Amino acid sequence: MAEPRYHLAVDAMGGDRAPGVVVEGLEIAAERHPDARLLLVGDEVQLTPLLARAPRAAKVCALRHAPDVIAGDMKPTAALRQGRQSSMRLAIDAVAAEEAEGVISAGNTGALMAMAKIVLRTLSGIDRPAMAAIGPSARGDVVMLDLGANVQCDARNLVEFAVMGDVFARSVLGLPAPTIGLLNVGSEELKGDARVQDAAGMLRASPIGPRFHGFVEGHDIAAGTVDVIVTDGFTGNVALKTLEGGLKTLFNALLTAFASEPQYKEPADALLPALLPLHKEMSPDTQGGAVLLGVDGICIISHGSSGETAMLNAIKLADEMVRAGLVAEITAAFATPS
Amino acid sequence: MAEPRYHLAVDAMGGDRAPGVVVEGLEIAAERHPDARLLLVGDEVQLTPLLARAPRAAKVCALRHAPDVIAGDMKPTAALRQGRQSSMRLAIDAVAAEEAEGVISAGNTGALMAMAKIVLRTLSGIDRPAMAAIGPSARGDVVMLDLGANVQCDARNLVEFAVMGDVFARSVLGLPAPTIGLLNVGSEELKGDARVQDAAGMLRASPIGPRFHGFVEGHDIAAGTVDVIVTDGFTGNVALKTLEGGLKTLFNALLTAFASEPQYKEPADALLPALLPLHKEMSPDTQGGAVLLGVDGICIISHGSSGETAMLNAIKLADEMVRAGLVAEITAAFATPS
Repeated sequence: MAEPRYHLAVDAMGGDRAPGVVVEGLEIAAERHPDARLLLVGDEVQLTPLLARAPRAAKVCALRHAPDVIAGDMKPTAALRQGRQSSMRLAIDAVAAEEAEGVISAGNTGALMAMAKIVLRTLSGIDRPAMAAIGPSARGDVVMLDLGANVQCDARNLVEFAVMGDVFARSVLGLPAPTIGLLNVGSEELKGDARVQDAAGMLRASPIGPRFHGFVEGHDIAAGTVDVIVTDGFTGNVALKTLEGGLKTLFNALLTAFASEPQYKEPADALLPALLPLHKEMSPDTQGGAVLLGVDGICIISHGSSGETAMLNAIKLADEMVRAGLVAEITAAFATPS
Repeated sequence: MAEPRYHLAVDAMGGDRAPGVVVEGLEIAAERHPDARLLLVGDEVQLTPLLARAPRAAKVCALRHAPDVIAGDMKPTAALRQGRQSSMRLAIDAVAAEEAEGVISAGNTGALMAMAKIVLRTLSGIDRPAMAAIGPSARGDVVMLDLGANVQCDARNLVEFAVMGDVFARSVLGLPAPTIGLLNVGSEELKGDARVQDAAGMLRASPIGPRFHGFVEGHDIAAGTVDVIVTDGFTGNVALKTLEGGLKTLFNALLTAFASEPQYKEPADALLPALLPLHKEMSPDTQGGAVLLGVDGICIISHGSSGETAMLNAIKLADEMVRAGLVAEITAAFATPS
């Protein structure tokens, strides 16, 4: 098998401010990673002049024309049927054809997950791929999954998510022995429904049992009680958006309060150096995006509102996942012992 | 039917710092509400000396001895069987006997909900009572339910929660035409599983249909996009605790950042008057507790960690619910048209 020609295939047309912001992000990324080899997939009529104004990006990117774009409101089934010549699909195809090691898109999340599952295929032994993301906590980075790939999950799915999250925390975050918690309405063993009860039993009996912390609650996410938080895609999606929305609202309330009286201006300015790192740490752009775990390839799902920073960090995250051999590690974790 | 002798029955033994903090809270409450008539239920050996040191509380409280206490880790089924002489049960019994208009406890939440459902009974036409709470948002108070009374819910339950939340927002918060949102993984009509899809369809066709905003996402909670957020007890419990934990972590991170350099001390002190109201608004104690809606009586579920402020605000909330005639309003909303 030949070495892939490209590190990453980038969907140039995905996201609210594409393709301009994608190329701007690549320009910054190319400055830091001049050895990157990227395949930029999208409308060449729009991309050619953008690359002409982004000389560093132009150096690291090969351009591949895609005549179509997946709209943000297109249903996943429609995207699968009608989107075969879309920038998103052709970028994923490049991974399936082993031309590129991974794909990045800030486009329609549902379409991206559906296409990645069908085109890249789910790894052997895994029932359902899951969306995972790294987030800040009071005690360092926390991996959380599923964040919305599966709105309905059974106990087996939750156990698979735990195994994938564990591999991710070890190989990408570099934690030697990550702790794993199952999100529930209480930390006591008897709490929750049959599904989380069954999943907890299976996890205790599994190879990662010694590092299974048991049930965790919503406040354990930001507290960083465990390294990996496992939940179904409905709860995970709501919890993550609740947290992001709450922090954003609180930051805005702080800024409003500081602007409410003239005498606050000077002290607020003096505290800016203390506030900015916190704001940056909590910005969704800092992580670059979520990842789809359990498919045969690296797949990064960026926010639709991604700016240049998100694009830069998405490329960095994809690179870390490739270097860690994440797909091979997950495959190994699900291999049946012979 | 005679007028109830007591406004509220208070479980003196419920909560991490009971009974001391309960009596302290009542002492403050009695200063503000010297006309309150409260039934304090608990161990008279402990309560008598506490009331002797709390003269205002002693004036407004009648003491009723309860030999037992429901432990924090007792299973609800065990509490129902073995807790007939507990402070929690006797306080609820006083509401069932129409001696008091409502009950407050900061004790074992599961036991309290189970006892309230059995002893007070679920109102006619309602399948499952729900736990609701008022929380702050960028656009005023938001009511959210269910917060954990039902870890599994069907579409009909969600519709009932919406109707109860609507009544609560109108009669207790005084909103003339509250808007209602159903929590989901996306705001588009096609998102989510069959359960939320069915509930949305039923809500659109219901009398509150014109005020049904449709699906809302996690970030809409703090944003205050709607006045009433409806979800199942699993998701609601996780979302609320995630939000509370996230805000607490961010506040702590702010304080740590402000203490990290000596030159931040003076400006941080100067900003304290701007920070304190935000901190207070976001404290769980400010709302005094959650409420159980759908049972025949007022039932306030306070945090186990409730301090005096929480106790004071719980009494205030219970009083507002009684004045609003909440139970009668909910009964009317579920009455079959004749």
